Amino acid sequence: MGALPEIRIGLIGYGFIGKVHTLAYRSLPLIYDPMPARVRLVGVSAATRESVQKAIDQAGYEFGSTDWREVIGREDIDVIDCCVPNHLHYEVVMAALRAGKHVYCDKPLATNLAQARDMLAEARRSGVQHRMTFHLRFVPALMRAKQLVEEGFLGQVFSFRACYLHSGYVDPNRPMSWRLEATAGGGALVDLGSHVLDLLRYLLGDFAEVFAVTETFIKERPLPGQPERRVAVTVDDLVMLTLRTVDGALGSVEASRLATGTNDDMRLEIYGQRGALRFSLMDPNWLHVFDARDPEAPFGGNRGFKAIESVQRYPAPAVLPGPKFAIGWLRYHIASQFDFISSLVKGQPGPPDFEDGMRVQEIMEAAYRSARDRRWVALPLS
Amino acid sequence: MGALPEIRIGLIGYGFIGKVHTLAYRSLPLIYDPMPARVRLVGVSAATRESVQKAIDQAGYEFGSTDWREVIGREDIDVIDCCVPNHLHYEVVMAALRAGKHVYCDKPLATNLAQARDMLAEARRSGVQHRMTFHLRFVPALMRAKQLVEEGFLGQVFSFRACYLHSGYVDPNRPMSWRLEATAGGGALVDLGSHVLDLLRYLLGDFAEVFAVTETFIKERPLPGQPERRVAVTVDDLVMLTLRTVDGALGSVEASRLATGTNDDMRLEIYGQRGALRFSLMDPNWLHVFDARDPEAPFGGNRGFKAIESVQRYPAPAVLPGPKFAIGWLRYHIASQFDFISSLVKGQPGPPDFEDGMRVQEIMEAAYRSARDRRWVALPLS
Amino acid sequence: MGALPEIRIGLIGYGFIGKVHTLAYRSLPLIYDPMPARVRLVGVSAATRESVQKAIDQAGYEFGSTDWREVIGREDIDVIDCCVPNHLHYEVVMAALRAGKHVYCDKPLATNLAQARDMLAEARRSGVQHRMTFHLRFVPALMRAKQLVEEGFLGQVFSFRACYLHSGYVDPNRPMSWRLEATAGGGALVDLGSHVLDLLRYLLGDFAEVFAVTETFIKERPLPGQPERRVAVTVDDLVMLTLRTVDGALGSVEASRLATGTNDDMRLEIYGQRGALRFSLMDPNWLHVFDARDPEAPFGGNRGFKAIESVQRYPAPAVLPGPKFAIGWLRYHIASQFDFISSLVKGQPGPPDFEDGMRVQEIMEAAYRSARDRRWVALPLS
Amino acid sequence: MGALPEIRIGLIGYGFIGKVHTLAYRSLPLIYDPMPARVRLVGVSAATRESVQKAIDQAGYEFGSTDWREVIGREDIDVIDCCVPNHLHYEVVMAALRAGKHVYCDKPLATNLAQARDMLAEARRSGVQHRMTFHLRFVPALMRAKQLVEEGFLGQVFSFRACYLHSGYVDPNRPMSWRLEATAGGGALVDLGSHVLDLLRYLLGDFAEVFAVTETFIKERPLPGQPERRVAVTVDDLVMLTLRTVDGALGSVEASRLATGTNDDMRLEIYGQRGALRFSLMDPNWLHVFDARDPEAPFGGNRGFKAIESVQRYPAPAVLPGPKFAIGWLRYHIASQFDFISSLVKGQPGPPDFEDGMRVQEIMEAAYRSARDRRWVALPLS
Repeated sequence: MGALPEIRIGLIGYGFIGKVHTLAYRSLPLIYDPMPARVRLVGVSAATRESVQKAIDQAGYEFGSTDWREVIGREDIDVIDCCVPNHLHYEVVMAALRAGKHVYCDKPLATNLAQARDMLAEARRSGVQHRMTFHLRFVPALMRAKQLVEEGFLGQVFSFRACYLHSGYVDPNRPMSWRLEATAGGGALVDLGSHVLDLLRYLLGDFAEVFAVTETFIKERPLPGQPERRVAVTVDDLVMLTLRTVDGALGSVEASRLATGTNDDMRLEIYGQRGALRFSLMDPNWLHVFDARDPEAPFGGNRGFKAIESVQRYPAPAVLPGPKFAIGWLRYHIASQFDFISSLVKGQPGPPDFEDGMRVQEIMEAAYRSARDRRWVALPLS
Repeated sequence: MGALPEIRIGLIGYGFIGKVHTLAYRSLPLIYDPMPARVRLVGVSAATRESVQKAIDQAGYEFGSTDWREVIGREDIDVIDCCVPNHLHYEVVMAALRAGKHVYCDKPLATNLAQARDMLAEARRSGVQHRMTFHLRFVPALMRAKQLVEEGFLGQVFSFRACYLHSGYVDPNRPMSWRLEATAGGGALVDLGSHVLDLLRYLLGDFAEVFAVTETFIKERPLPGQPERRVAVTVDDLVMLTLRTVDGALGSVEASRLATGTNDDMRLEIYGQRGALRFSLMDPNWLHVFDARDPEAPFGGNRGFKAIESVQRYPAPAVLPGPKFAIGWLRYHIASQFDFISSLVKGQPGPPDFEDGMRVQEIMEAAYRSARDRRWVALPLS
Repeated sequence: MGALPEIRIGLIGYGFIGKVHTLAYRSLPLIYDPMPARVRLVGVSAATRESVQKAIDQAGYEFGSTDWREVIGREDIDVIDCCVPNHLHYEVVMAALRAGKHVYCDKPLATNLAQARDMLAEARRSGVQHRMTFHLRFVPALMRAKQLVEEGFLGQVFSFRACYLHSGYVDPNRPMSWRLEATAGGGALVDLGSHVLDLLRYLLGDFAEVFAVTETFIKERPLPGQPERRVAVTVDDLVMLTLRTVDGALGSVEASRLATGTNDDMRLEIYGQRGALRFSLMDPNWLHVFDARDPEAPFGGNRGFKAIESVQRYPAPAVLPGPKFAIGWLRYHIASQFDFISSLVKGQPGPPDFEDGMRVQEIMEAAYRSARDRRWVALPLS
Repeated sequence: MGALPEIRIGLIGYGFIGKVHTLAYRSLPLIYDPMPARVRLVGVSAATRESVQKAIDQAGYEFGSTDWREVIGREDIDVIDCCVPNHLHYEVVMAALRAGKHVYCDKPLATNLAQARDMLAEARRSGVQHRMTFHLRFVPALMRAKQLVEEGFLGQVFSFRACYLHSGYVDPNRPMSWRLEATAGGGALVDLGSHVLDLLRYLLGDFAEVFAVTETFIKERPLPGQPERRVAVTVDDLVMLTLRTVDGALGSVEASRLATGTNDDMRLEIYGQRGALRFSLMDPNWLHVFDARDPEAPFGGNRGFKAIESVQRYPAPAVLPGPKFAIGWLRYHIASQFDFISSLVKGQPGPPDFEDGMRVQEIMEAAYRSARDRRWVALPLS
């Protein structure tokens, strides 16, 4: 493996998602064989010295700093992996692009559309590769779904139903965090809905219009460690969208942080003239497909939803832990990073890129306008 | 059983739903023990002599006519069961009410709100019992859901997700029928959505506003027996609603006749502060409930959705085929009729009555206005 | 329908299963169209006058008696439907056969193999039609399974897994009944296992050998109404079989009355060289099939279990309640009776007949021997 | 983390399972926080130089050799992780024990009972920690099951049903490998059944007797790369066991390599007087439990199987990827290693150890005897 190209990572932000990305990088060389490159964890930045030290101890980063500009400034780093809270994306990513680094940016791209457009423009100017972490595109079952859509399996799409349901904020005493403040760019829609919107665009193409209603059911929460001081929650904890695609399909998307009893319940159904698809993220080993061309003899038919065993079968060069073992959430991040690393080595940028990130931002901005104005909003926004 | 009161039925309309009601009446005395009355199938009306004769042969009606007025005119009939196509409901039901008959009316009550209001007013004037066939209220799992809601199991309701998906009209060569014409009062919304709307009102109370989008994807269909003559479909084959209840919950309802691969897929989820409910009509033996008050110890917790074995356990006096055997669709109709017969014997009217039928009609009318005007519509309509 | 042949039923035994058969007869003319005959409920016999009267009131039997011989003696009865407790089957069925009546006999045929052989011999001598109520053969999904097996869908069968789990006797205070006494011919094996054994024979052919272990976990129960008087349970409440078919497949069958939390859980899986089948009676709308000939491309395959929507699609002339509505347990009995009535009208006997009933009895007798002697027992018994 | 104790690993065997263990070690420091030790991957041994080099490149082992004795001989290694094919376990493990190394041994412990007893005796003599890789004990849902059993949730256990179904060998042209030769100690029973037997012992205690039937359906397979040369398969590809526990429960275990359409289908059900448990490895996020003490009011009851959301909640100090995200197979190995490392640091050996490995070996040996002699075999073997 000595002759392999080396991809040198600088990771900024060592909170939950920063750790997830780090673990995924460390898993890559065993899961994919051959790997197109050697991935080196060079630099890390986090808010506190303790956090920086933890990253070095846990994952072997060679260098760390509480100043993210120091990581971006390093010559021995090829990729900036942006894992900071949403409101810092703009500054970090713009600096990374200007320093000529490839960027791997956790969703959402930005906190508003203007930022996102700027970032996309800068990314294009810089000539680097820019990649979003929409890891759901790398769920094996959903990769198979994409193939089927491209093969015309669905025919004309009539409708889709999707939701992303979490329950993490049902307890009204869960304290405030940056995810509950307007500076994050939004709430359930941004946090959860963005994944679904990207996935739907990926599978069905662009949207022509959106209608939204949002709600903040739990309007106040205590400050961390100060249960008696309650402050206003300034983002949505529930959003319901109705969407129409450019191709004329109608569908709904719900994102909720208050779906009592749910874990990580992203569900998707698409109904077309020729076939249908269903998927659930809590039962991720199977893509359920219905082929309307199957015969429906009154006695003797074989129509029905087939649970395609995608399991850990995709993408192709994955060798561990084997195609048949139940897949877990982490694996999608690993596959996303593998795809990005492969793109870098080949010098061929691939989706989802900042264009995709910007489009999702645009839909979300349109949705918030719709919710405010109580009317349909056309896409793209001018 | 000789001393039992006798409830004498006159059924008008011997198409699919008329046969279903008839079969249900015939099943009653074996499924419920004791029965509060002896149900006698006295008169039947259908469009053709063949159909009338078939009803007599299949079910033992004592008398039949192609003129429904003749059935209503009989003194030896207590109840008119209205199973005609939607556009005839008004005339038949009004005549029945004026003749002083109790009325059991298949949904929807009417083809528009004005009719529905008239019918309700007439029913109230007449002093008879008026009952809608919203048979989903009599699914044992949903009866249990109603109990739980009334016990406060859900706490404040945040959101609900519901759909009623059929696939019967995916084939563009399926010929026209009265269900595809505007005279039916609407399409997927009226046919399928009405059930869900009633169920949600039953569980969650009245709605404050509705937003709707409707679509007719398959715009032309052949006339029956004339494949080359295609005429316009004048009702929706897909509708997506966003609703807000008076109590502030937000939710979505989709009704589709084009949900490829589905059978009779009515699904419902409700998320509240204290608990959650889920149900699917194609897996009707269980009501899935989550109790947020269950402990979530880091190790040792027992939180999760419980599949309550409602099966054929409800309502109480049902003895056949026994509580543990998988339930089927017909049973809900039987239970609905049992409840109606019981109400008649006791002289105590029960829901769902024409008030419920009118309210559903009102929501549908508001939804069609919303779809036309592309905006929220407040309820009740003035 | 006046010109239809008439099949005149005499039912003996108006307990649970007698009521089920009765309700099924009453449902036939609405569910099947055309019906090959008019089914008339002529006579009924039950243990008490109250029970006889109830049958007449609930179902319209024309005549009733507490003496079953009186029903058999009637000239105006064509079919004796035997619904008495197991230990009375022999006497009732032999008398019916000798009187030249067709017989429809609820399972099991008898309480031991010697009886069963006698009954089969008498049935053959008499020239009448003899039919067992193995209603699981008439579950639409399992009818489709039978077709697939006959089409060679499975290829060489390697193995099968089946169970029939009930929980009705988990409570040690449930009182004694005839089902818990050795005179019934056995316990869980006879009551539940017999259904599975018939189904497996139907799908996979005869067995070559059986190994069994039985257990009576709850060894005493109170007498009905006398909670302080406990008497010995003399039959198995759990049985586990290992079976080898003549064709070389290996499999297991478990029958339990102590499977806490189960309702009517008959589950079946069959694995073959070319395909596999799965079915569960509590989720009866679908037959799950896997076709090993589907391609398993590393990326692009479509292998998986397909949930064939059998629902209420079979058998063919069923028109109510329609193919897409969730099926219930009662329907299998209705379909079984329809098939029997059709056979009578055509004069062409069909399975499952007393040969099938005797074979199941033989397997059960071999199983009890195996359990007693703790060794394999070869089939057929000499 | 500098002050942490260091656990230095020497891994022998870098095939599939060796890679899995390696990936798991590399994942530990990010998934558990705090980690009780720093795990250093010091030495690795594999059959070929290429494989050794791959291990060094992929995982950063500091040292490698094709001679496993060299790894065992190193002073700077604390733990020997045994991942060689079954027939080499004895030699490698005995050498490691004699060198005073702690041993982490992939299942099965040995290829026969005599070896296993020797290994256990040597392990006890040596005073080191000896640990089996029965990773299913570390599935969160099954860890919860163990807790429930210990709390008496099940009451007296009546019966259990378990299976481990794979389909990897359905294709008769899949070539020979060491897993298909008698030197492996057995086939499906050893490969798959051993996991289930350990799990059942863990949950239900020791077995009193076993009955088994084994079969080799595909009796010949081609040599690798020589499709025309077919040699005999000398192990079982299907085994069906009936077992009785010391406590009197009866149950069945099936292990199959020919279960067409299955992936990694380990399923387990346990039925007791007070409650029941169900689990499936392809749907691993939930443990389904039924509590018989829940009320079963005729109307108002809440009995049913609850899907406890175990997901990634256990064991306690796991922090990544978070409790709510769908779990995958690899995680169980990681948790198993975490538990072992913790035991080493605390100096307190924990299960599953070589005693457990030996007991599983004993049951398998008894099962093979039973299959050969066609009779029950009592446990423990003398």
